[in-house]
Amino acid sequence: VRSRLPAVGTTIFTVMSALANECAAVNLGQGFPDFDCDPRLLDAVEAALRAGHNQYPPMPGVPALRQALARKTEALYGRRYDPEHEITVTAGATQAIFSAILAVVQPGDEVIVLEPCYDSYVPNIELAGGVAVRVPLRADFGPDLDAIAAAIGPRTRAMLINSPHNPSGRVWQRADMLRLQELLAPTEVILISDEVYEHMVFDGQLHQSAARFAGLAARALVVSSFGKTFHVTGWKVGSVLAPAPLMAEFRKVHQFNVFTVNTPMQHALAAYLADPAPYLQLPDFYAAKRDRFRAGLARTRFELLPCEGTYFQCVRYAHLAVPERDLPETEFCRWLTREIGVAAIPLSAFYGDGREQRLIRFCFAKREATLEAALLRLARL
Amino acid sequence: VRSRLPAVGTTIFTVMSALANECAAVNLGQGFPDFDCDPRLLDAVEAALRAGHNQYPPMPGVPALRQALARKTEALYGRRYDPEHEITVTAGATQAIFSAILAVVQPGDEVIVLEPCYDSYVPNIELAGGVAVRVPLRADFGPDLDAIAAAIGPRTRAMLINSPHNPSGRVWQRADMLRLQELLAPTEVILISDEVYEHMVFDGQLHQSAARFAGLAARALVVSSFGKTFHVTGWKVGSVLAPAPLMAEFRKVHQFNVFTVNTPMQHALAAYLADPAPYLQLPDFYAAKRDRFRAGLARTRFELLPCEGTYFQCVRYAHLAVPERDLPETEFCRWLTREIGVAAIPLSAFYGDGREQRLIRFCFAKREATLEAALLRLARL
Ligand SMILES: CSCCC(=O)C(=O)O
Ligand SMILES: CSCCC(=O)C(=O)O
Repeated sequence: VRSRLPAVGTTIFTVMSALANECAAVNLGQGFPDFDCDPRLLDAVEAALRAGHNQYPPMPGVPALRQALARKTEALYGRRYDPEHEITVTAGATQAIFSAILAVVQPGDEVIVLEPCYDSYVPNIELAGGVAVRVPLRADFGPDLDAIAAAIGPRTRAMLINSPHNPSGRVWQRADMLRLQELLAPTEVILISDEVYEHMVFDGQLHQSAARFAGLAARALVVSSFGKTFHVTGWKVGSVLAPAPLMAEFRKVHQFNVFTVNTPMQHALAAYLADPAPYLQLPDFYAAKRDRFRAGLARTRFELLPCEGTYFQCVRYAHLAVPERDLPETEFCRWLTREIGVAAIPLSAFYGDGREQRLIRFCFAKREATLEAALLRLARL
Repeated sequence: VRSRLPAVGTTIFTVMSALANECAAVNLGQGFPDFDCDPRLLDAVEAALRAGHNQYPPMPGVPALRQALARKTEALYGRRYDPEHEITVTAGATQAIFSAILAVVQPGDEVIVLEPCYDSYVPNIELAGGVAVRVPLRADFGPDLDAIAAAIGPRTRAMLINSPHNPSGRVWQRADMLRLQELLAPTEVILISDEVYEHMVFDGQLHQSAARFAGLAARALVVSSFGKTFHVTGWKVGSVLAPAPLMAEFRKVHQFNVFTVNTPMQHALAAYLADPAPYLQLPDFYAAKRDRFRAGLARTRFELLPCEGTYFQCVRYAHLAVPERDLPETEFCRWLTREIGVAAIPLSAFYGDGREQRLIRFCFAKREATLEAALLRLARL
């Protein structure tokens, strides 16, 4: 069979989760919680199911959910999106990003991605007929605005950014966003801002949503994920915010991709969003997990990278006391899963050239007992 | 904003549902039931939610659901699909068809569609960079195999078929499938078979799934919809069956489009599929509605087209006693919604050239009271 994506295999997240299951390893690979959501959110789904909310919702999403999202975005980021024309509910953030790319990228268009980046971006661009222009992040994983400036050219159609950043946990600063705004001002480049970890920013920092910056918001599709925020990654509900003309193009693709998104979950999320406490408490909740996990890792020979946001902690394994410290990242992760019983994700999976830096990513969105079990095993290294 | 789909507006289904709501009309337009599903299916969702099935399922779908689908397909159509490599759960049939097209169509490839056809097919092909080759169905909406034979050429990459057929309700015969199999045998054309109404075939006919025909199944992506079958269109869960090499290409796109599909709904559907009665009873259930609806329409001046399958009834309005019988289909549907209080879908929406035949489609997946209310209003014509 001729392939549209010859270079692509099964995503590393799927591969490592399957291996983790097979080896009964502690799975700190794929990014999902191993604890359940607030039972009130389940109550809200049951209420929606029993109220008969089981048929197609309106194409852009259940109105109450779009309205709740408008209120939340205005309260947090100071920008009012019109629920009717500027907000669409998606089948998760992955589908939002793919549909956004398909809606704006035409064959031959260039799209800037900042590496390392999530593994769907580049295949998404290729399926749209575009050309991915890979710009490296700085060594500390912050944005290199000079390199971005140099990459913008007459064929640049769009740019993907992601803060808090998966896999590094780096968070963009206000100055970064202002500089980006300045760079893009003379262009017609469309910004796709992947903000799925918007509610996981630690140590008193603010999430610098593209929605906060008028000059960026006017050209941006801002993507988020209810699954990440409310511990229900399996529900596959996300969202896109964009100015009306851009959203009109997004919806043309969205309606012919998934058409609509699970109705009872949308009703439940709409009701649940009335209380801001669950997402406002998220930084403290995850920062506590981060701190305990980092404290445990600090007792090993893993070298800890900073973690300002997301629920990921990256470490360098080059200085472990075992010979496997010389393995390439993917092999190291397989070995770690099989022999030590802890699954992780190699950072090489986030680079087009699969570069080797002896870096792996752990997910700490786990129960204390899970993190303790993983740390006990990692202590052997 | 430059558009990837300049010719496309909001789908007719969305437009007519919005108008129906606005006018408090009886909505026989968009295809969805106005009754609820079996409460045991809701019980099964609640059990899944409370059992903690709220995180990412495996990328191709919950294993139990894929296994249940394999058993059902083998029992009904005599072909065994391997749940591991040949079955994928999708976010509805629309997403399945789009991902299938993206997976097999490369820029410049020709894809045969049989008109009238569902309104997502052609934009899907265009987004993939392909060229839609429109082959008319016969006047009775059956397949014109000679015209199909004439349309197949060296650049034909894929072909979309749909039986039971939306909007016409026509059902393909075994002889049609055998002839298609013969036509495709010397080619490498990939078949995308949209079978979302597979369980709505009436009067003792059999659904001629592509899965029944070895020569077709070997080149086919067979698409179906749990939403249509179990009266939960808002859950957005569908499926694709395909031989492993084709499925591998499908999954490459699927994983970067939606990645996965709602976990609790998948668990619920897996449990619910254990009992074949709900889908085996569906032909009788819908045939009864069809018969009552047709009997009511027979008392009007609408001209009834045959309905062998689906939950749609098409009628010609050219002989009504009102001057609006001369309106084009879309305007007629707007008038019917606004002034008579019954929403329908114009068949012109299913043709690239928007051709006018004075034909509209009613959905009869409605409670008796709803159908009676619609018939009362239509009796005024
Ligand atoms: C969609 S599976 C991967 C989840 C995730 O965002 C990650 O692990 O990076
Ligand atoms: C996806 S909305 C339209 C539902 C449907 O299949 C139809 O009405 O034809």
